[in-house]
Amino acid sequence: MTQQVRVAVVGATGAVGKAMIATLLRREFPFSSLKLLASSRSAGTQVAVADQLIEVQEATPDAFADVDVALFSAGGTVSIQLAPEAVKRGALVIDNTAAFRMDPDVPLIVPEVNPEHMHGHKGIIANPNCSTIQMLVALKPLHDAYRVRRIVVSTYQAASGAGERAIAELTEQTRAQVMGEPVVASVMPVAKLSRHYPLAGNVLAQIDVFEPNGYTREEMKMVNETHKILGDKTIGVTPTCVRVPVVYGHSEAVYIETERPFEMADVRARLEAFPGILVQDDPEQQVYPQPLAAAGRFEVFVGRLRRDLTQPTGLSMWVVSDNIVKGAAWNAVQIAELWLQRGRVGG
Amino acid sequence: MTQQVRVAVVGATGAVGKAMIATLLRREFPFSSLKLLASSRSAGTQVAVADQLIEVQEATPDAFADVDVALFSAGGTVSIQLAPEAVKRGALVIDNTAAFRMDPDVPLIVPEVNPEHMHGHKGIIANPNCSTIQMLVALKPLHDAYRVRRIVVSTYQAASGAGERAIAELTEQTRAQVMGEPVVASVMPVAKLSRHYPLAGNVLAQIDVFEPNGYTREEMKMVNETHKILGDKTIGVTPTCVRVPVVYGHSEAVYIETERPFEMADVRARLEAFPGILVQDDPEQQVYPQPLAAAGRFEVFVGRLRRDLTQPTGLSMWVVSDNIVKGAAWNAVQIAELWLQRGRVGG
Repeated sequence: MTQQVRVAVVGATGAVGKAMIATLLRREFPFSSLKLLASSRSAGTQVAVADQLIEVQEATPDAFADVDVALFSAGGTVSIQLAPEAVKRGALVIDNTAAFRMDPDVPLIVPEVNPEHMHGHKGIIANPNCSTIQMLVALKPLHDAYRVRRIVVSTYQAASGAGERAIAELTEQTRAQVMGEPVVASVMPVAKLSRHYPLAGNVLAQIDVFEPNGYTREEMKMVNETHKILGDKTIGVTPTCVRVPVVYGHSEAVYIETERPFEMADVRARLEAFPGILVQDDPEQQVYPQPLAAAGRFEVFVGRLRRDLTQPTGLSMWVVSDNIVKGAAWNAVQIAELWLQRGRVGG
Repeated sequence: MTQQVRVAVVGATGAVGKAMIATLLRREFPFSSLKLLASSRSAGTQVAVADQLIEVQEATPDAFADVDVALFSAGGTVSIQLAPEAVKRGALVIDNTAAFRMDPDVPLIVPEVNPEHMHGHKGIIANPNCSTIQMLVALKPLHDAYRVRRIVVSTYQAASGAGERAIAELTEQTRAQVMGEPVVASVMPVAKLSRHYPLAGNVLAQIDVFEPNGYTREEMKMVNETHKILGDKTIGVTPTCVRVPVVYGHSEAVYIETERPFEMADVRARLEAFPGILVQDDPEQQVYPQPLAAAGRFEVFVGRLRRDLTQPTGLSMWVVSDNIVKGAAWNAVQIAELWLQRGRVGG
């Protein structure tokens, strides 16, 4: 069977890696073999995949010798070291880290948004940042129709975006808070930095490190990745990225201004017709997207659609999606599916 | 002693009422008597005030006969019924509900922002919405210097803004979540509406009821109260109001565009010099405002100051304050202090 694919997941024991495995199974992705790779620290761990246990192997260059598609999510350093080795051995790398996203030779793909960018790849395709993916799925049909000129976005991002340790930390902090015990922070907002703050019962206006311009790296990802994916550097992007005490599901308050005028009925129709979007917008029935309800789902949920009160070409919306699923694992698997559908299109 | 004031707190058993009592004590407000009033349901309850117990009395028109200042926070219906009765009996009413805020005869006061509006009062002074208060304290020095033309604001609002029952609900939901028990919702987002959703581990893009234009009433308060307090209806306000699982402290991602250009050093200096603001803005040291740290404080905390990447007159900031303290109780007591300082200025 020509569709049979030898798949490797790099970072198989992490939050996204586990979700990648689960997504391959949910999608019945036609893999003939599934290799689970991780750092030497995690090698030897047994991971349950459907009804079998697979042992995690150490990610080394030669581990990619018999791999067609390698899904990377083990941090930027691992991707920089091993992605070229995997490509050298004939694998397509779909990389979930930020390592190659802004590399002009690496397409940055949201399958609903810019599948046409895939053709130029040289073995590595990058998966965008979670916050960017869901925002651009929601904006693409509107950009096509009315041309987006300005984006002001505030995010409400889940702890899982910071990985397994952050999920464990929020869970433990919440337990301690309920029990009246001291709340300890050693992972969030950024594990490698010196200061840590509780997320339980709190909100942290820092995701990733600060850049010299006063924006965080997460915020700059939303700016730069939006420009690359939409192929338009003139779009003004004004992001504020914030962590909230939610485990799964990023929410975003997105305000846009468009070049061309729009009718609200047309906005809604275009969003409803767009693949990957589920419109949940009925104020009278109190229907709007919520992260708790979006957890585990593939879709990007859009609601709270309303025209701006003073700018006729201004539109506000509320965009929610599971950051680990559509924001990472599902988007990566979706890229692999697209690659298969297009006959394993090479670079 | 002419400074001795007979004070009443209406809604003394609620979240804001209790904070009003605590604030009067913290400020050593010169009250000669303190009358605690509430609905007949709460009458008879004993409330500890410093080292004495005060019995809550039923709020009736005649309860205001010997009152100089009545702080109301028992819901709009109670204010509509009893505020005029209190005024008739010679009391100054400082009303924390939305009942009179947009009444042209009622000044809507943030003492740091528009104290001059107090002079026109006819016995009732309104306390603005919590989200509006903290935003306008942060924007006033910038509006004075550069004239604010556009505001795009996304809020991260605490459960306490929805009252005692919402605090209890979030606490109970969090406990149930930790214990692995079913999470029940019957208060939030809006107690009187038919649908309720969990706030624990979730984010709710609805505060108060929806208006026919698709904005919530909370969002429209931010628009209309901003126009009234700054005395400028031409400012474009684009709000998204969101409840997050935090008990005390609202956070706001505020983006503004100004008419006149600004230097960042001047922005910072003006904010630092403005009464009621504490600037917490040192990205290198990971210093920025957080609701958990702002709880119980009088100040409005401002940080994450950064010029927009594409709009030279665009500025982003992060504004945090305790919604029950500066957003309600302290702002009300501050109005009473101002009234005293100005010689009990009448209408």
